[in-house]
Amino acid sequence: MKNTVQVFAPASVANLSCGFDVLGLCLEGVGDTMSFQRTSDSGIKIFNKNNSSLPTDPKQNVAGVAAQALLDAHPIAGGVQIEIEKGILPGSGIGSSAASAVGAVVGINQLLEHPLPKQDLLPFALAGEAMASKDAHADNIAPALLGGIILVRSVYPMDLVKLPIPKDLFAVVLHPQIELKTAEARALLGNQVLLKSAIQQWANVGALVHALHTDDDSLMARSLQDVIAEPLRKKLIPEFDRIQKIALQEGALGCGISGAGPSIFSLVKGAEKSHNIAHALSYFCNQKGIEHQLYTSPINRNGVEIISAK
Amino acid sequence: MKNTVQVFAPASVANLSCGFDVLGLCLEGVGDTMSFQRTSDSGIKIFNKNNSSLPTDPKQNVAGVAAQALLDAHPIAGGVQIEIEKGILPGSGIGSSAASAVGAVVGINQLLEHPLPKQDLLPFALAGEAMASKDAHADNIAPALLGGIILVRSVYPMDLVKLPIPKDLFAVVLHPQIELKTAEARALLGNQVLLKSAIQQWANVGALVHALHTDDDSLMARSLQDVIAEPLRKKLIPEFDRIQKIALQEGALGCGISGAGPSIFSLVKGAEKSHNIAHALSYFCNQKGIEHQLYTSPINRNGVEIISAK
Repeated sequence: MKNTVQVFAPASVANLSCGFDVLGLCLEGVGDTMSFQRTSDSGIKIFNKNNSSLPTDPKQNVAGVAAQALLDAHPIAGGVQIEIEKGILPGSGIGSSAASAVGAVVGINQLLEHPLPKQDLLPFALAGEAMASKDAHADNIAPALLGGIILVRSVYPMDLVKLPIPKDLFAVVLHPQIELKTAEARALLGNQVLLKSAIQQWANVGALVHALHTDDDSLMARSLQDVIAEPLRKKLIPEFDRIQKIALQEGALGCGISGAGPSIFSLVKGAEKSHNIAHALSYFCNQKGIEHQLYTSPINRNGVEIISAK
Repeated sequence: MKNTVQVFAPASVANLSCGFDVLGLCLEGVGDTMSFQRTSDSGIKIFNKNNSSLPTDPKQNVAGVAAQALLDAHPIAGGVQIEIEKGILPGSGIGSSAASAVGAVVGINQLLEHPLPKQDLLPFALAGEAMASKDAHADNIAPALLGGIILVRSVYPMDLVKLPIPKDLFAVVLHPQIELKTAEARALLGNQVLLKSAIQQWANVGALVHALHTDDDSLMARSLQDVIAEPLRKKLIPEFDRIQKIALQEGALGCGISGAGPSIFSLVKGAEKSHNIAHALSYFCNQKGIEHQLYTSPINRNGVEIISAK
């Protein structure tokens, strides 16, 4: 039984253009660092180390809700103090709430007398994520927890498919610094879609999965198309069309909105090309006066990481 | 340059539950036999050997329209007489019009001075199919032409993906003898679908493609679900729910409507299980007084076959 745990909870890119609500991949190097300390007082206490805008009330905090869900099912004596150092800006579209939720359940799990297998933690993380996005998605949580490229076939019951990762695949993520609430971006979509568009979308999902299995760059490029969310949501992201065009011209296989945005991801073969794309996007944003952050990352195969557990 | 050609154009199963309009597979042993004879008179003449209900006017006959489309692009001296022996009942939901269209272009192609590669014949077959279904789908045509399990990523431009065929995969097709026009079955669907259902559908398409690659029976079974067309179209097929239940109880991985119906397909691992399912379905139909035909077939890997060309 551990008393002090530290975890690194990675950022993730959901949707991957064609896979709205069902596909996601895990990023490397960008994420939240969370520390867990067993306390003699009962209950969860949250300290936000570097982001004072996040709620400290555990019932209002994604990490708190996820942690509580796990503790409700697997109680411990005393309580837990959680210290969160956000490396992901909330509302950036790269799974900020998923990282908090996943980090929380993986950290708390280490404090249990009998820690659960990683995969069994997913429903508890989902409880946290559901608070943030008013709906239950696992397309950020699953890759943040398990790593790799994940297809969420079903949330209830949870049914996840780990897809193959083509070699040399990199994600370049551009985060233009505008905050955009997931719930608002979702509201744009409505409840119905054209059957014609839906058919295109599922043809692309099928083709993308085949392309990942066969490492077919050209098919990957043809499949990374979003005819459902992107046409509506891109209006919320200044210069989206130009940015997408630049990424594709520089050789990205695909470029689309990461999650609900505003971050924009590109999938790229090779480190050099990734850096060229990052450079070109940064140059463009600087010219346009768009404040931004850029991440270039291979696909993180392992997901959330336990840094220490004592 | 050939003067007399005979081809066997196979039946096919479109949609495969989750892959509405984009997935199809090719059957073995059931199909149309078509003979082509060069004539000195110009134009296309059609003789229906065993189905007097089919039009003999080439402009009204799927085979005629497809043949003419190819001849318009690649003219020959004189004309062609086409003799059609249908092995597939029109309106059965196993690609009757696709077989006619595919057989026609493959037969005519052999009469050309410079026959085209098989894949290049697809657009001409599509012209025939479009006449029959008032819309351009390739989910029967592509498997009938190329064989195997095909994902149609896009029709314009044509983009086809040949999916892997798990070993020992069989299709059992039950054709209850009620005629059902594709156009009517399509009309049931409307232009819009719930986003929620569409998401489920594309998650299943992605998972099915993964399952075909990994030969994962359980995932195949979980993915072979249709939340878009089946709930609406099954009302047109007497006893559909009971038939589906029997097939699944007897061990089918999935069971759904073949194309627009009324045929019902099951995907099954192993010849013995296939025969058991066919037997159980036949028994049930006989009890209920449902006239029917049953086909048990491995996946046809080659598609349309040139029997002779002289």
